[in-house]
Amino acid sequence: MILVIKKDRDKKQVDNLIRWIRSLGLDIYRSEGENSEIIGIVGDTSKVDIELISTLDIVESVTRVQEPYKNANRKFHPQDTVIDVAGHKFGGNNFQIIAGPCSVESEKQIIEVAKAVQKAGATVLRGGAFKPRTSPYSFQGMGLEGLKLLRKAKEETGMPIVTEIMSEYHIDDFYGVDIIQVGARNMQNFDLLKHLGKLKTPILLKRGIAATMEEWLMSAEYIMSEGNPNVILCERGIRTYETYTRNTLDISAVPVLKERTHLPVIVDPSHASGISRLVKPLSLAAAAAGADGLIIEVHNDPPHALCDGAQSLRPEQFADAVQSIDKILQAVGKSRDK
Amino acid sequence: MILVIKKDRDKKQVDNLIRWIRSLGLDIYRSEGENSEIIGIVGDTSKVDIELISTLDIVESVTRVQEPYKNANRKFHPQDTVIDVAGHKFGGNNFQIIAGPCSVESEKQIIEVAKAVQKAGATVLRGGAFKPRTSPYSFQGMGLEGLKLLRKAKEETGMPIVTEIMSEYHIDDFYGVDIIQVGARNMQNFDLLKHLGKLKTPILLKRGIAATMEEWLMSAEYIMSEGNPNVILCERGIRTYETYTRNTLDISAVPVLKERTHLPVIVDPSHASGISRLVKPLSLAAAAAGADGLIIEVHNDPPHALCDGAQSLRPEQFADAVQSIDKILQAVGKSRDK
Amino acid sequence: MILVIKKDRDKKQVDNLIRWIRSLGLDIYRSEGENSEIIGIVGDTSKVDIELISTLDIVESVTRVQEPYKNANRKFHPQDTVIDVAGHKFGGNNFQIIAGPCSVESEKQIIEVAKAVQKAGATVLRGGAFKPRTSPYSFQGMGLEGLKLLRKAKEETGMPIVTEIMSEYHIDDFYGVDIIQVGARNMQNFDLLKHLGKLKTPILLKRGIAATMEEWLMSAEYIMSEGNPNVILCERGIRTYETYTRNTLDISAVPVLKERTHLPVIVDPSHASGISRLVKPLSLAAAAAGADGLIIEVHNDPPHALCDGAQSLRPEQFADAVQSIDKILQAVGKSRDK
Amino acid sequence: MILVIKKDRDKKQVDNLIRWIRSLGLDIYRSEGENSEIIGIVGDTSKVDIELISTLDIVESVTRVQEPYKNANRKFHPQDTVIDVAGHKFGGNNFQIIAGPCSVESEKQIIEVAKAVQKAGATVLRGGAFKPRTSPYSFQGMGLEGLKLLRKAKEETGMPIVTEIMSEYHIDDFYGVDIIQVGARNMQNFDLLKHLGKLKTPILLKRGIAATMEEWLMSAEYIMSEGNPNVILCERGIRTYETYTRNTLDISAVPVLKERTHLPVIVDPSHASGISRLVKPLSLAAAAAGADGLIIEVHNDPPHALCDGAQSLRPEQFADAVQSIDKILQAVGKSRDK
Repeated sequence: MILVIKKDRDKKQVDNLIRWIRSLGLDIYRSEGENSEIIGIVGDTSKVDIELISTLDIVESVTRVQEPYKNANRKFHPQDTVIDVAGHKFGGNNFQIIAGPCSVESEKQIIEVAKAVQKAGATVLRGGAFKPRTSPYSFQGMGLEGLKLLRKAKEETGMPIVTEIMSEYHIDDFYGVDIIQVGARNMQNFDLLKHLGKLKTPILLKRGIAATMEEWLMSAEYIMSEGNPNVILCERGIRTYETYTRNTLDISAVPVLKERTHLPVIVDPSHASGISRLVKPLSLAAAAAGADGLIIEVHNDPPHALCDGAQSLRPEQFADAVQSIDKILQAVGKSRDK
Repeated sequence: MILVIKKDRDKKQVDNLIRWIRSLGLDIYRSEGENSEIIGIVGDTSKVDIELISTLDIVESVTRVQEPYKNANRKFHPQDTVIDVAGHKFGGNNFQIIAGPCSVESEKQIIEVAKAVQKAGATVLRGGAFKPRTSPYSFQGMGLEGLKLLRKAKEETGMPIVTEIMSEYHIDDFYGVDIIQVGARNMQNFDLLKHLGKLKTPILLKRGIAATMEEWLMSAEYIMSEGNPNVILCERGIRTYETYTRNTLDISAVPVLKERTHLPVIVDPSHASGISRLVKPLSLAAAAAGADGLIIEVHNDPPHALCDGAQSLRPEQFADAVQSIDKILQAVGKSRDK
Repeated sequence: MILVIKKDRDKKQVDNLIRWIRSLGLDIYRSEGENSEIIGIVGDTSKVDIELISTLDIVESVTRVQEPYKNANRKFHPQDTVIDVAGHKFGGNNFQIIAGPCSVESEKQIIEVAKAVQKAGATVLRGGAFKPRTSPYSFQGMGLEGLKLLRKAKEETGMPIVTEIMSEYHIDDFYGVDIIQVGARNMQNFDLLKHLGKLKTPILLKRGIAATMEEWLMSAEYIMSEGNPNVILCERGIRTYETYTRNTLDISAVPVLKERTHLPVIVDPSHASGISRLVKPLSLAAAAAGADGLIIEVHNDPPHALCDGAQSLRPEQFADAVQSIDKILQAVGKSRDK
Repeated sequence: MILVIKKDRDKKQVDNLIRWIRSLGLDIYRSEGENSEIIGIVGDTSKVDIELISTLDIVESVTRVQEPYKNANRKFHPQDTVIDVAGHKFGGNNFQIIAGPCSVESEKQIIEVAKAVQKAGATVLRGGAFKPRTSPYSFQGMGLEGLKLLRKAKEETGMPIVTEIMSEYHIDDFYGVDIIQVGARNMQNFDLLKHLGKLKTPILLKRGIAATMEEWLMSAEYIMSEGNPNVILCERGIRTYETYTRNTLDISAVPVLKERTHLPVIVDPSHASGISRLVKPLSLAAAAAGADGLIIEVHNDPPHALCDGAQSLRPEQFADAVQSIDKILQAVGKSRDK
């Protein structure tokens, strides 16, 4: 870490700062320039609060040389982490497609969708039981009953299941869930992350709606530093000023993260765009950019006015998308897990 | 709510949609245009999921005529909500200054700062016990011990206290806390909001780092719809591309919210800017724009290298700012609670 | 266009508004609701200033039913526009790769790069002569001399050339330039756009750094409404809060624009990311998402410390990327123009 | 400037880089660390392209110690620049209010508004003759005729005038204009800035819609480095995701800029919010935060349906706002120029 100290600084404050840094067990290099002094800090600087230091009156600027994430850092773990979910592997040269409805609505619905997406190529079933909704007046999901139906669908089809958790209160209720999802709104719910870090269940960690990639990796670090190494990152679009799409899919996040971390990175084209017609082209883009998988909303109920045409695909559209994805995977030398 | 239906729509889907809307107990007006059909929906449309509808294939656009928030809406509650905190009133023609350190560090520290800010004009004491930190390796606050010290400071000075909660697990531990703060990262931690809605304790609800004002009001709605009407909104800066400040203080939020909601609105200039030199001018701006109060970080420990110069003011700087704030309040016809 | 008029409006103001709308030759439908009045406006509403109307005191909200762009709108021109550049076609089922150095630096440099990229598969040569630089102290490009060298490279290789214009002053100097580029910073330099609209030369219109897709299409409309139908849109990343990449490539813009407009859409992965290692994965993503081409920075001068490793690829890296792009194009049923 | 060089760098590339930096006349300090090498660059680094260097493969990070702006930098020019506009001073302890209609529409209109705003306290008259509009189908302003009417209003009232220029073509037509405005969309129209730098006329430089403060100061630098020191900066809101206001007024820009530059800084509350009801509270906030003035839209034509209620105030509303502004100015120890 490198600090540039202002020219007209208070020498006593600088001494205080240096004493404090040394008290953290770090080494200091000082070099006096014409207009400023430069202080190099050497050692494990992950415990130094860069934000706090950067706001000190005497500090002109701070530059971190080392990334603040350790467990998630590819530098210290060069090979890809491969996470096994009931025989389906995330990471490495594998490619997984997770699919299912936005919300679990009934036993019939979830089992029918499960069978349809399985037939079309999905290996993991998604479905919301606890739904984070902007409005308290919107449908909040079926809750525990939804979890039960998901487990039934798992039994029926053999597909592992992924569903979102909204509170550490519910961890015990999530038995039988193969991947626990942390939604965008809870990416920095640190108490929840710490609790999930005590499990071994793989965690699907969605990017916060305005989270930097560094903050996202730090949230993965919360889970990993508690002992759970099984984190799958999921890019799902970030908030920008653009209004033609619900969010802006940050496709660059895929190759950037594949370089910086060894964790698997998947993409959610359904939430990123909010428009079903965009799910296929964005899925192809994600596969081409090097993603390790996709999570796609699929609905099976055409007469149901509401969800037909929303961000969910119908099963036949999903099957068509999978065929195109396969061609892209072949082009990039990967193959989808089947 | 007004839907514009596409020209080349599938009539059966439109019928399905209309049947579904009617099943929610709403009335429908249809009017056929040359290029599109317009559907007006009349009744309590707060239960209609605008986001879902807007993504239907047959829908060109959706416009909400009524705001989705009810309890927080000034239309249905024209007079200001005034929240009494141990005799200090938030809202109406009152102005409160909350002040205190970023984190509680020791009994001596919190009591000294409490006395200093009280003397300078603060009426409520702030201090972090549970700290949400981007990094798991940063100091996470003193926790329960911090709460105890806050209660001591309250006893010693008579000042009511405000501190942040990070999990519904801790609600019982927050006895004696006069205002419970929900931080920016938990603004959409809906489970936490629902639990806080069951209390009567005033809730200081900070705006999420990329939350729209509407989402923020909907989070207030979560608390209010559970039965707790005592919500204080706190603008603390939003995330933009600008790097000279940590966040961008959205000063317009103050007059906009004062128009749309009856809830008190205060401003946090310390976190908004991240720079102590900006705290005073931004406090003056907030008071001039019509805010109901301020929450300011103050630290009492000049030899402590780290916090001197950060976003916290020293007590004498705080006292100087309060004097200037008083002049602005006089100019806008308000007076600070003493 | 649909206006929702507030409940407690001033009737005289509503009458004034309606009179004014009728004076523009538009028809009005009024329908009174319980809480508001709805006014439908029928006819060519492209001349109605939606922004102005939306700020009227009496207006609750405005919804445009028709897009404000006409010439660029696919609704009125369903088939793809195909633009022929010296025999190389942009749009339709074609795919073009434009490549070349950031700046023209010397005759030797531009001709060497031209030959290298041509050999590797590029069909059009890019090179900056007039460079828009944030700092007045940075290199501003070779100017007219740079244009001359580009024409030499064109002569030498037969490749058509594209280069950026920064002022309508220079239009006459751009003879021999096959595609005139308008940079992100000038996307709303309307005087420049109008002048370019009087030409027939194809215009490569880059998206402004914070432009919505609608504003971007309206800038295309400026060029087209003056008589030049040959506009190629170029997505080059938008500004967000993320710092790991220079800009955020908005990959969704590709399928969204292909749906809304008949104009060709290409992608600039070099400027979008600012990192050479990302150029290949983002190029593959763009091809997979349906782009009509790419514009890529290539530099030929490995010992030149400065540009080696920047956002420019070396020729051999470019050649490798083209081979991978070809595989993606095959997967999506397109083939690169050769 | 400080470069952190990667651990596993190519030594030859580092040598090339250092040779190149030295060739710019700069001195180099090298210091080898355990994980990286640090290179300090001393001298006038404003000619070093930080963006280019930061993208080099061998470079981990770059930190600028000195700001890249020189003429605009308060470090080299500690006292406030005071710009005299026909006897009215911008900067220092002065406060000016510029007011007038969005567009010049007729002789009667502009003269009536001029007299009204003058009477209420404005010292400079604004009015658009050339209007930058998103749509080519919207009213583009009266052009040269508008300039003539502005000069008439100036003659009639003695008020200096400010109006926007959209192309360097028009510079000669702007005789008699006392302040030439550069709009947000042209903030990085560098050719225009260079031409304006050859004049002595004060330039009102609006912030680009997504410009960082540093880019904005660099655009001022373009004007100043050509010889025109008379630049007035105008904050007018930046683009964010928030939709309740047209733009987000970045009030922090006022104190930040007052610290970093000696140039006058004014605020445009009309365009920042797009809502006339917000003009007064935002004006008060700007004055409280230390702005040197305001530019406010005022319209005099209540029966004119369109502009009544838009972002423009009526003269009586403007007069009321001025009275409140005066109270704030008194509170902060300034007084408005009369």
